[in-house]
Amino acid sequence: MRIIFIGDIVGSIGRDMVFDHISRLKRKYEADVIIANGENAAAGRGITKAIFDDLLRAGVDVVTMGNHTWDQKEIYDFIDDTDYLIRPANFSDEAPGRGMTTITKNGVTLSIINLHGRTFLPPHDDPFKKADELVNEAKNLSPLIFVDFHAEATSEKIAMGWHLNGKASVVVGTHTHVQTADDRILPGGTAYLTDAGMTGPYDEILGMKKEDVIYRFQTNMPVRFEVPKQGRGQLNGLFVELNDQTGKALSIERIIINEDHPFQS
Amino acid sequence: MRIIFIGDIVGSIGRDMVFDHISRLKRKYEADVIIANGENAAAGRGITKAIFDDLLRAGVDVVTMGNHTWDQKEIYDFIDDTDYLIRPANFSDEAPGRGMTTITKNGVTLSIINLHGRTFLPPHDDPFKKADELVNEAKNLSPLIFVDFHAEATSEKIAMGWHLNGKASVVVGTHTHVQTADDRILPGGTAYLTDAGMTGPYDEILGMKKEDVIYRFQTNMPVRFEVPKQGRGQLNGLFVELNDQTGKALSIERIIINEDHPFQS
Amino acid sequence: MRIIFIGDIVGSIGRDMVFDHISRLKRKYEADVIIANGENAAAGRGITKAIFDDLLRAGVDVVTMGNHTWDQKEIYDFIDDTDYLIRPANFSDEAPGRGMTTITKNGVTLSIINLHGRTFLPPHDDPFKKADELVNEAKNLSPLIFVDFHAEATSEKIAMGWHLNGKASVVVGTHTHVQTADDRILPGGTAYLTDAGMTGPYDEILGMKKEDVIYRFQTNMPVRFEVPKQGRGQLNGLFVELNDQTGKALSIERIIINEDHPFQS
Amino acid sequence: MRIIFIGDIVGSIGRDMVFDHISRLKRKYEADVIIANGENAAAGRGITKAIFDDLLRAGVDVVTMGNHTWDQKEIYDFIDDTDYLIRPANFSDEAPGRGMTTITKNGVTLSIINLHGRTFLPPHDDPFKKADELVNEAKNLSPLIFVDFHAEATSEKIAMGWHLNGKASVVVGTHTHVQTADDRILPGGTAYLTDAGMTGPYDEILGMKKEDVIYRFQTNMPVRFEVPKQGRGQLNGLFVELNDQTGKALSIERIIINEDHPFQS
Ligand SMILES: [Fe+2]
Ligand SMILES: [Fe+2]
Ligand SMILES: [Fe+2]
Ligand SMILES: [Fe+2]
Ligand SMILES: [Fe+2]
Ligand SMILES: [Fe+2]
Ligand SMILES: [Fe+2]
Ligand SMILES: [Fe+2]
Repeated sequence: MRIIFIGDIVGSIGRDMVFDHISRLKRKYEADVIIANGENAAAGRGITKAIFDDLLRAGVDVVTMGNHTWDQKEIYDFIDDTDYLIRPANFSDEAPGRGMTTITKNGVTLSIINLHGRTFLPPHDDPFKKADELVNEAKNLSPLIFVDFHAEATSEKIAMGWHLNGKASVVVGTHTHVQTADDRILPGGTAYLTDAGMTGPYDEILGMKKEDVIYRFQTNMPVRFEVPKQGRGQLNGLFVELNDQTGKALSIERIIINEDHPFQS
Repeated sequence: MRIIFIGDIVGSIGRDMVFDHISRLKRKYEADVIIANGENAAAGRGITKAIFDDLLRAGVDVVTMGNHTWDQKEIYDFIDDTDYLIRPANFSDEAPGRGMTTITKNGVTLSIINLHGRTFLPPHDDPFKKADELVNEAKNLSPLIFVDFHAEATSEKIAMGWHLNGKASVVVGTHTHVQTADDRILPGGTAYLTDAGMTGPYDEILGMKKEDVIYRFQTNMPVRFEVPKQGRGQLNGLFVELNDQTGKALSIERIIINEDHPFQS
Repeated sequence: MRIIFIGDIVGSIGRDMVFDHISRLKRKYEADVIIANGENAAAGRGITKAIFDDLLRAGVDVVTMGNHTWDQKEIYDFIDDTDYLIRPANFSDEAPGRGMTTITKNGVTLSIINLHGRTFLPPHDDPFKKADELVNEAKNLSPLIFVDFHAEATSEKIAMGWHLNGKASVVVGTHTHVQTADDRILPGGTAYLTDAGMTGPYDEILGMKKEDVIYRFQTNMPVRFEVPKQGRGQLNGLFVELNDQTGKALSIERIIINEDHPFQS
Repeated sequence: MRIIFIGDIVGSIGRDMVFDHISRLKRKYEADVIIANGENAAAGRGITKAIFDDLLRAGVDVVTMGNHTWDQKEIYDFIDDTDYLIRPANFSDEAPGRGMTTITKNGVTLSIINLHGRTFLPPHDDPFKKADELVNEAKNLSPLIFVDFHAEATSEKIAMGWHLNGKASVVVGTHTHVQTADDRILPGGTAYLTDAGMTGPYDEILGMKKEDVIYRFQTNMPVRFEVPKQGRGQLNGLFVELNDQTGKALSIERIIINEDHPFQS
C-alpha cells in the first residue's frame, strides 16, 4: 500500500495547495491512500463541514486533527457522523468523535490512529498507553497501521517512534508546522518522521502573519494571529510504501513543494 | 566565505563523529570556518576545558552553547579566557562569558552570535532586542554575521529568522536535536534553518538512552538520562556560502551523516 | 498613612461587594487611601471606562492591573489619560499606560507600583530590575511606596518581598485569587502578604462558574469560563498603616468579608 | 475525630518545629490523629527512613508526600513496608508505594488519600478520576476521608475541593509552602483549605536560602538551593473536627506558629 500524508493544512492557501497538487501527487506516487491533518484548515482554527467535504471530494481519504480540533464549534455536529475524520484518541472519554478509523483501499486494509502529546501541552490521557491499546485493537484487522502523533517536543515524538517500532507501520509527527529531515525506517520496520510540516503560507510563521507573531514575541502584548489569504504557498508531507502482508515500511520519502522546490513529476 | 555549522554535539559518540568527519567535511565544502554547538559535548551536559581544547585542535573555530552552558562547573574557570567559546548573549549581565565573537579567516571577518529562546524556557533577556543590539555592533566590523539561536519553539525560531532577514547572514536554530528540512535563503539574503539537528547517538532519543526516556514519558518517575558511549553515530549540520562583500547568503545545504546517509565526498 | 488594598475585583458581584463595603471599610480603618486591583472587573476580563469611573466615584483612589489588562480593548483609549490606573511596569516599552503613579492624600505622598511575575507566565521584562528602578525613582518623591506584584508562584512573590525589604513600604501579591495567611512586617519595615485574594463570587472557582472549571480539569475540553452575576460575594484585601516620615509599616491586617466572616465595624 | 495536619516539613528546622510543638498541639486540640506532609523533610528533598521513624516516634500517625517523593533514593527500600507513608495516588501504576491508607484511632476509622496536581506540573494520571475511585473505595470502610492534594494552582485545588464537596471530610492543599486564609466548611460538610503552608525556616523562601532564590530569579543562572539549618522556624497546619458517624466536618481552624504568632495553649 502506498500512502501520502499531508501535514497541517492552514487556511485557504493551504487548502488551495492541496487542491492544486493532490491529483498529480497521487499520480506521481501511485498512492492508494491520502491522509491529511486538517486541524488548521479553517483559517488556522479547526475545520468546518464544508471544508471537510471539499477535502474528501478532492481525494483525501482520512483527515486527522490536533489541539485545534474544537476551534470551529460546528465540528460537534458532524464528527460523530463520519468515519473519515478522527481526533486524538487520548482526548477525554467525554470528547465526541473517535481516535482511530480503518479503511480498505484496493483490497488492503489500513488503520489510522491520531494521538496527542503532553509535553508543553495539556495533560491529556497517556498517549503511550493509548497507542498500545489501539495498535493491539487494529492488529486484529490488519498489520498496516498509520499513526499521526500531534505533539510539540521532539523527545516525545521520537519516544513514540521507538515505542511503536515494529508495532506500527508509520509514526509521523505533526503540530510544529516545520518539516524535519529525520525520515528513516526504524529497525523494526516502522517508517518514522518527527514532523511532516505544514501546508499553507510559505512566507509567514507557522501560517500566521509574521508581523503579528514577531510583535507578540517582542512585546508579549495580545495579538490575534491572522492567517493570510494571499501569498505564496507550500505543501509538506510524506510518502510511505508498506508491505501489504506484513505492514512493514518499504520506503519513506519526504514531500516538499514550494517555489524554491517546485513539484516534479 | 564558506561556513560549516555542526549541530549540538552530544557525548563521546558525538565528539567522535566530529573527529572522524571534520577534515573531509572541510575538504568537501572547502570551508573557511567551522562552528559547532558544544552544549552537550560532555556526556550530554555542558563542556569541559579538555573537550573544548580537543574540538579546537580538531579544527572547530568557534563553539556555541545553550541551556546546558553551566552544567560542567569548570566552564566558569575558562570561559572568560577564550574568544572561541560563546554562550547565549541574552543570558544575564551577571553571567560569565560573552555572547558574540568575531574572527577573521582567509582575510574575511565574521561575527558569531549565540542567542537563547524563551518559549517553554526560562525568562532570559529579550533575544530579539539583544539580536538587534549585537547585529548593529557586528555590522561595524563586517557584514558577515552568523546567529545560532538556541530555542525550542518553531514559532520563535522562524520569527527570529524573519526578524533578522536582511540583517544577519545566517540564522540557524539548535536545541531540539532534530534537523529540520526548511533550509532556505530568505528574500533579504539570510540563510535560514529552524534546527541544525544533533551530532551523537543515532539510535537513541536526543542522544539519551531511549529506554530511559520512554520510561519517563510512561511513568513520570525520576530517571537520570544517560548518554550512551557505544552505538551508531550521526552528524547533523549546515553548510552556507556567503558573499564576502555583502554578507548575503549565496547557498545553503543541510548536512546529514549517518549509516543511512553515509558521507559522500 | 492608612491604606486599604482590595484584591482582584471579579465581575459585577465583585464590584457590588466594593460598592457595598467601601465606605464602612474606609470608616473602620480610617483609611487615607484605597487601592484596588481591577484586572477582572469587567465580567472577569479587564476593565472598561465605565467601570473604572464607577470605582473612582465609589472612593477607589488607584486601580492596578495584571495579565488581564488588555482584555477589554477600550482600555487602549483611556489608559493614557488618567493617573489613577496603572498596569504592570515591566510590560513592554511598547505597551500603553504606565506602571507607577504617585498621589498625595491628607498631605502625605505615596507611590504605587504594579509589577508582573514571570514564573508560569509570559517572559515580561525583569520585575526585580524594574522594581529597583522604580523604587529609586519613587524615593525621590516620598519614602511611602506600595507594590502590587501580580504573580503566580509563591517563590517569586516572597522573593520580591525580601528583595524590597526595607525599600518598599508594602509588597502585596495578587493573581491567585486566594488570600494567603502569611501577612507580616519583614525586618526592614516592609509589610508583606503573598496574595490579597479576590473580590467576587464566594462559591465559585477564582470567580468563574465552578462546573465549567471542574469540567475543564476533568476533560481538557475547551470551555468558555463565565463569571456568574448572581450568588454570594466575598471581599478580600489588606490594611496597612505606614509611618508618614519613614515609610516603614507600622501594622498590617488582612481583610476578609463573606457570609462566614461578616463585616465587623 | 479530631485531626491535626502539618504542612510540608522542610529540613531540620522544620523537623525541630514538629518535635518541639507536637505534644502541646496534640494536647491543645485533643487530637486523635496527626498527619504531616513530609516530602521536604530531608534537607528539602524527600524523606529518609530515619526521619520517617523519628516523625512516627514523635507522634505523627501518617506521612503524605508530593513531587519530592523520590528525591531520597532509599525511599524505594521502605515505602512498601509501611502503612503510614503514602505518596500521591495518581502517580504511575509503576510507582512503588500506595496513595491511600486507613487507620483506626480511639475506635474511629479514617482514610487518608494523597493526590497530585497537574497544572504547571507533570502529566500524572487524572487526580479527579483517581479521587472518585479512592473515595468510593474508602467509603466502604468509613465516611471519614482526609485528602492532601499536592498541587500548585489555586484553581485546581479549589476545583478538587468543590468536586469532593460532600464526599470527602477534608480537602487540604500542600506544595506552595504558603498557608492560605480561605479555610471554610463547604456546604456539603467538607472542610477545605487551599494550602496548609510549610513547616521550616521562617525567614527564607519556601524554606530555601533567600539569597539563592533571589539570585536565580534575577539571573536565571543555575543555583543549588540550600535549606538552612539555623534560623527561626515556623509551623503551619490545620485542625479539623469531624463527626464520627457522618464524616462531616464540624469545625476547621488554621494553625500558625512562629515568633510573630507564638504557640498559645
Ligand atoms: Fe497545526
Ligand atoms: Fe497543533
Ligand atoms: Fe539545548
Ligand atoms: Fe542540545
Ligand atoms: Fe485576577
Ligand atoms: Fe491575574
Ligand atoms: Fe513541599
Ligand atoms: Fe511540593
